[in-house]
Amino acid sequence: MSHPFDAALIFEPLSPQRVRGRTSEAYWNMVGPYGGITAAALMRAMLERPERTGEPLAFTLNYLAPIAAGEFVIETELVRANRSNQHWTMRLMQGETGAERCLALAMAICAQRREVWSHVDAKCPDVPPADDCPPAPPRRAEGFLQRYQFRPVRGLPFAENPDSHSEAWVQDVPPRPLDFTSLTAICDSFLPRIFLRRKEFTPIGTVSMNIYFHAGAGELARHGDAPLLTVADGQAFSDGHFDHNGLVWSRDGELLASTHQLVWYKE
Amino acid sequence: MSHPFDAALIFEPLSPQRVRGRTSEAYWNMVGPYGGITAAALMRAMLERPERTGEPLAFTLNYLAPIAAGEFVIETELVRANRSNQHWTMRLMQGETGAERCLALAMAICAQRREVWSHVDAKCPDVPPADDCPPAPPRRAEGFLQRYQFRPVRGLPFAENPDSHSEAWVQDVPPRPLDFTSLTAICDSFLPRIFLRRKEFTPIGTVSMNIYFHAGAGELARHGDAPLLTVADGQAFSDGHFDHNGLVWSRDGELLASTHQLVWYKE
Repeated sequence: MSHPFDAALIFEPLSPQRVRGRTSEAYWNMVGPYGGITAAALMRAMLERPERTGEPLAFTLNYLAPIAAGEFVIETELVRANRSNQHWTMRLMQGETGAERCLALAMAICAQRREVWSHVDAKCPDVPPADDCPPAPPRRAEGFLQRYQFRPVRGLPFAENPDSHSEAWVQDVPPRPLDFTSLTAICDSFLPRIFLRRKEFTPIGTVSMNIYFHAGAGELARHGDAPLLTVADGQAFSDGHFDHNGLVWSRDGELLASTHQLVWYKE
Repeated sequence: MSHPFDAALIFEPLSPQRVRGRTSEAYWNMVGPYGGITAAALMRAMLERPERTGEPLAFTLNYLAPIAAGEFVIETELVRANRSNQHWTMRLMQGETGAERCLALAMAICAQRREVWSHVDAKCPDVPPADDCPPAPPRRAEGFLQRYQFRPVRGLPFAENPDSHSEAWVQDVPPRPLDFTSLTAICDSFLPRIFLRRKEFTPIGTVSMNIYFHAGAGELARHGDAPLLTVADGQAFSDGHFDHNGLVWSRDGELLASTHQLVWYKE
């Protein structure tokens, strides 16, 4: 039996540039699919293109409008292939052929990783191992919050925390070996910063997510299915949108990705 | 006489979706235009579309290949208009009609700003006013480095600094009232992080830049032509690419933008 994550990302080829997928109840959020599973779908559609060479390096996704339950089409375009990198765009669409509405729009860069002088400036916080941090009870009884185990280290939702900083161990449920697709999805698992600031629930929706990958497929495979440490800082809540700067660390303190989001909030 | 920045961004309409521009010697970098002027060109092409409503909220640009001196075409597409926001894509191309090569690819979101509960979490560093910080001599005698005055506060290029943190006042030369186009360009003016780590020059090139705007046109106009405080932290140098997380502050300590980059470096 395949993992629910992989079951949510099964595509039927329609043409060399187009695949058809279907939204997953297992990764449903309140009014549409969990943003991370949409990001993962666009990432996987690109990774499955036979022309794709190199590994994901940068990925940006803009969410245009809610995705309805049911079928969708993803169109991938290799805009340019250079000697050592490729530039891609992806669009997720729903609706009748000829009258399709674009609901998500992504750009990505794949590149060959080169073993050269490397150095991590960001500091991995000194936190207790995941096993010593009790899992938070899922905030809802169904949908994507059942698909991740969150072990908060710092920053509790729906509380007035001293700042918008959060640290949490996150793991797929059931555990699943890490790859670029699941790492992409986990980059959308950070607590919305406004939940760290307000006791009451505020409606929110991510409008843009950006990911830079700092590790290759080998490092992700070595990490396996262990929990990841996710650390984020809110930077500003301004006039209806807030952002955060997030980092995803392996269990052993390797930086795997840096990620940024802009999120709409209702007031 | 118009400012060299505006002279570099004069477009001739070709169709409702296409304009023709020309690279500027005043903003030339070593092997192509300064990345910030390319970003500004894509931003301005979108802002000038008559259908555009709202103000820039998010902007991401991937640099695909070097842009040659001479003419270019920018194609803008309004992918989706919602009630309070718009989703755009832009492509910069060169070459014969029908055989154009895409050299830069951007996505942007415009939105209505709403005056709601707002709060800035990021801390503006306590630095001396710009007037008390001596300008750095331009690193080169021509091109875009002549078009900005940099007053470093912390972090000197081609030195072994203790970390990849930098603080600098930046101002257009000659001074020019701030708007979304010039702020977009300034978001590419941060020192490449590797220059803060290595005494020797390392060839570099930005491959992706992301900007979230935290201020509206009114705040930018109020800032006027004063220097901006740019603050950035490198997060990782890994296998041939490094990133940074940057913030742009007004003279009075208002957060105007947060911005991220991924940069290729040669070893």
